[in-house]
Amino acid sequence: MGKLTHFNPEGRARMVDVSEKDVTQRVAVAQGRVRMKPETLKLILEGKMKKGDVLAVAQVAGITGAKKTSELIPMCHPLFITGIDINFTENANLDDDGFVSIDVEATVKTSGQTGVEMEALTAVATTLLTIYDMCKAVDKGMTFEGIGLAYKAGGKSGEYKKGNANCT
Amino acid sequence: MGKLTHFNPEGRARMVDVSEKDVTQRVAVAQGRVRMKPETLKLILEGKMKKGDVLAVAQVAGITGAKKTSELIPMCHPLFITGIDINFTENANLDDDGFVSIDVEATVKTSGQTGVEMEALTAVATTLLTIYDMCKAVDKGMTFEGIGLAYKAGGKSGEYKKGNANCT
Amino acid sequence: MGKLTHFNPEGRARMVDVSEKDVTQRVAVAQGRVRMKPETLKLILEGKMKKGDVLAVAQVAGITGAKKTSELIPMCHPLFITGIDINFTENANLDDDGFVSIDVEATVKTSGQTGVEMEALTAVATTLLTIYDMCKAVDKGMTFEGIGLAYKAGGKSGEYKKGNANCT
Amino acid sequence: MGKLTHFNPEGRARMVDVSEKDVTQRVAVAQGRVRMKPETLKLILEGKMKKGDVLAVAQVAGITGAKKTSELIPMCHPLFITGIDINFTENANLDDDGFVSIDVEATVKTSGQTGVEMEALTAVATTLLTIYDMCKAVDKGMTFEGIGLAYKAGGKSGEYKKGNANCT
Amino acid sequence: MGKLTHFNPEGRARMVDVSEKDVTQRVAVAQGRVRMKPETLKLILEGKMKKGDVLAVAQVAGITGAKKTSELIPMCHPLFITGIDINFTENANLDDDGFVSIDVEATVKTSGQTGVEMEALTAVATTLLTIYDMCKAVDKGMTFEGIGLAYKAGGKSGEYKKGNANCT
Amino acid sequence: MGKLTHFNPEGRARMVDVSEKDVTQRVAVAQGRVRMKPETLKLILEGKMKKGDVLAVAQVAGITGAKKTSELIPMCHPLFITGIDINFTENANLDDDGFVSIDVEATVKTSGQTGVEMEALTAVATTLLTIYDMCKAVDKGMTFEGIGLAYKAGGKSGEYKKGNANCT
Repeated sequence: MGKLTHFNPEGRARMVDVSEKDVTQRVAVAQGRVRMKPETLKLILEGKMKKGDVLAVAQVAGITGAKKTSELIPMCHPLFITGIDINFTENANLDDDGFVSIDVEATVKTSGQTGVEMEALTAVATTLLTIYDMCKAVDKGMTFEGIGLAYKAGGKSGEYKKGNANCT
Repeated sequence: MGKLTHFNPEGRARMVDVSEKDVTQRVAVAQGRVRMKPETLKLILEGKMKKGDVLAVAQVAGITGAKKTSELIPMCHPLFITGIDINFTENANLDDDGFVSIDVEATVKTSGQTGVEMEALTAVATTLLTIYDMCKAVDKGMTFEGIGLAYKAGGKSGEYKKGNANCT
Repeated sequence: MGKLTHFNPEGRARMVDVSEKDVTQRVAVAQGRVRMKPETLKLILEGKMKKGDVLAVAQVAGITGAKKTSELIPMCHPLFITGIDINFTENANLDDDGFVSIDVEATVKTSGQTGVEMEALTAVATTLLTIYDMCKAVDKGMTFEGIGLAYKAGGKSGEYKKGNANCT
Repeated sequence: MGKLTHFNPEGRARMVDVSEKDVTQRVAVAQGRVRMKPETLKLILEGKMKKGDVLAVAQVAGITGAKKTSELIPMCHPLFITGIDINFTENANLDDDGFVSIDVEATVKTSGQTGVEMEALTAVATTLLTIYDMCKAVDKGMTFEGIGLAYKAGGKSGEYKKGNANCT
Repeated sequence: MGKLTHFNPEGRARMVDVSEKDVTQRVAVAQGRVRMKPETLKLILEGKMKKGDVLAVAQVAGITGAKKTSELIPMCHPLFITGIDINFTENANLDDDGFVSIDVEATVKTSGQTGVEMEALTAVATTLLTIYDMCKAVDKGMTFEGIGLAYKAGGKSGEYKKGNANCT
Repeated sequence: MGKLTHFNPEGRARMVDVSEKDVTQRVAVAQGRVRMKPETLKLILEGKMKKGDVLAVAQVAGITGAKKTSELIPMCHPLFITGIDINFTENANLDDDGFVSIDVEATVKTSGQTGVEMEALTAVATTLLTIYDMCKAVDKGMTFEGIGLAYKAGGKSGEYKKGNANCT
């Protein structure tokens, strides 16, 4: 197994030197889920049909959150994001605990010397946090599950695809 | 069941008017977990014992992330955080899928007109994202699970305690 | 006529000392207009009816922009915004130059030692800039007109109401 | 007429994918005007002659504001600005309503995959907002007029020149 | 001698809980010096007399920098600054190494539960960094000396006055 | 001697146009020192040995601070930092005034059209400010000395090495 690369010989954190790495096209896809009461999902969907679109606000937040990644994650390199897209899938069937859920998938692209895994994960996390914020008046027990990297391509470490990833 | 309060009569999002609410002492506790390979946890713990402390960096990120909450979540009110504390618990026993984990708990306090649930959740999310970033060179499959509110007190809506919350 | 208060005896800018001022409830309303081609407004309204809501994105931007006011305006005091609401009025009738327009009105509240005029104006400006950004692929000639303060109340200088202000 | 490009097939906003676009030299010029009472302009000009330079502060704000564009406008790509210049022209002659004005022109350059129209417009808006802030103690009725794009060059869509643009 | 208060029982950093502290009027004064070649000071003073005012830009930067203190210093509490003033003193006499200097003094006020020492120090540091940036084309050897707290008042720990402080 | 390049023909500040400059590998090293009471250094070193690592927090702050350089310094160009490393050297011997000290050295790299001198200096300043913040409860008299550029390479102006620089 490898070793952690974010530390210098003194054992303190550093921003890894990528100045010798090639500039390549890179993409990363991250996913996550927010579980909620069926009534909460109903309110969200009604808003979407009529007015008051929780997911529209959450998705703007996800995009702006992705752009803040290098401010939020101390050792992240700043980079030029060339594209962000966020999609939602509602799961209206009750799970074993009586909850329903919304899945969030974020795709981020860049042309640079480092990947955009953290940007995609930050987009998902910020989107989920915003859904929580918009609905917390009616459902404080919402939880986020299964936030992780689904896919990445580009750069020296090549392609990564999670076992259960069904990203396009 | 209530209704979503983040929308104006036109059906568009607004920042809810809290100008008539009382200034009270408020606290919120949020929790979350990052699952990882046993070898990854071993590397983190070795770093902690000797040098190269992933959790020290992650925890600074969680504190600074909490202070950015109103920048990340569109309808969140800016507020004066009066205290933030973040704690870790390592779970070295393998779960059913052969993973181990680290639990993160963030406690945030304020004296103001709105609560700090979002600040506590943002602290947890940012801490987990930073652990991922520091370890992604060796374990891209890490996932975040069970991010949610464990406890809140203060304000008109009173105390909230999650079923499985064992926060102090 | 008074004098500019933002300068110290050396003639350099300062952030005016408000530490002796009372904490009071304050509100400010600002307005502005973006002029555009009739086809552009049609595209915006179609998106609103079906999907692709330019104004929903612009309004989120206006709210988050208002929270950045003290970062953007050098001598502005940071403060706790307690509420933000942004409304739109479409003017589909052609003006003398053959343009139509959308009016933006932002209402901002706080409880503090300084007013929120700049926050309301920044909300309007950011909302308008975002409308431009979302539509510039089809209409680069859009312009912003009549951005100004419509109303303010609270604080020592009392109430202000612009001649043509019809804010509620 | 074209269509809005900022929406994905679901009808939600996205950051347009520019990863296939060429890196080219780009420039954009934006303009805007603040109307004010003659006495206000007199105070500004006196300060400029002696001490207390409103426009010096406003211009620093315009430059730093332009650098915040991708934070303020949700779907804007972050990019490397390679140059910003802001100029002022005072119009001391009374207009039909008895007001005078200051014109602001911002020129922004980059070498990248997207243009800098939004950066130039944001520079103008932030400059105008700062002039308002510095003078609002003596003239709350100031308004901003005619904020728009005057010129752009570079990129696939080529050169744009506004009808009445007299930028160099 | 006391002990460091920024660590929790686990030995990790925390934002100290100030929720029980009183809201009081607080002020802090910090000072610092930039040493430079006599020719550099001459260029700065000529610019000030005619046009091109390095210190005007540096001072705006110091004020905006002070407002970013809680973003820059991880364990700093966000707070409402109620006033900032920055002053300069030129020392045109050569020191033992043949250098001249400019002294910077920043005064910051707040009404809150924590002091503004860090805000005053950050104001000084940002002001000095900006002077360096504006002049580095002609003098890369400039250094900053004697940056420290000169005075503070308000809060439980009371008044502090540095030995050589001559602040007003 | 040269002239200041940060001003336009009107005498106002501008962000210097670097669009014609070559993209080259660039590095800058900055240094600085914080002087303190021997007891303060002892507390820091004890924390480092056991738990409560002031320098770990300060170093994360230095890295995140460097990434904020173009937000803090008005005329600084935004750029892609490709690597940051910060090192500490403790000087436990008393100086003439009875103080000991910690030296901070920051190395910043980029591949771009402008240098990273300001990023390296900002990293040092932010690191020092954070040490002050973490220890100010026990030693308000700490001062920062000798903050300056030690080395730079890359770009048209070539290599710079300070007289007393012993950077690697």
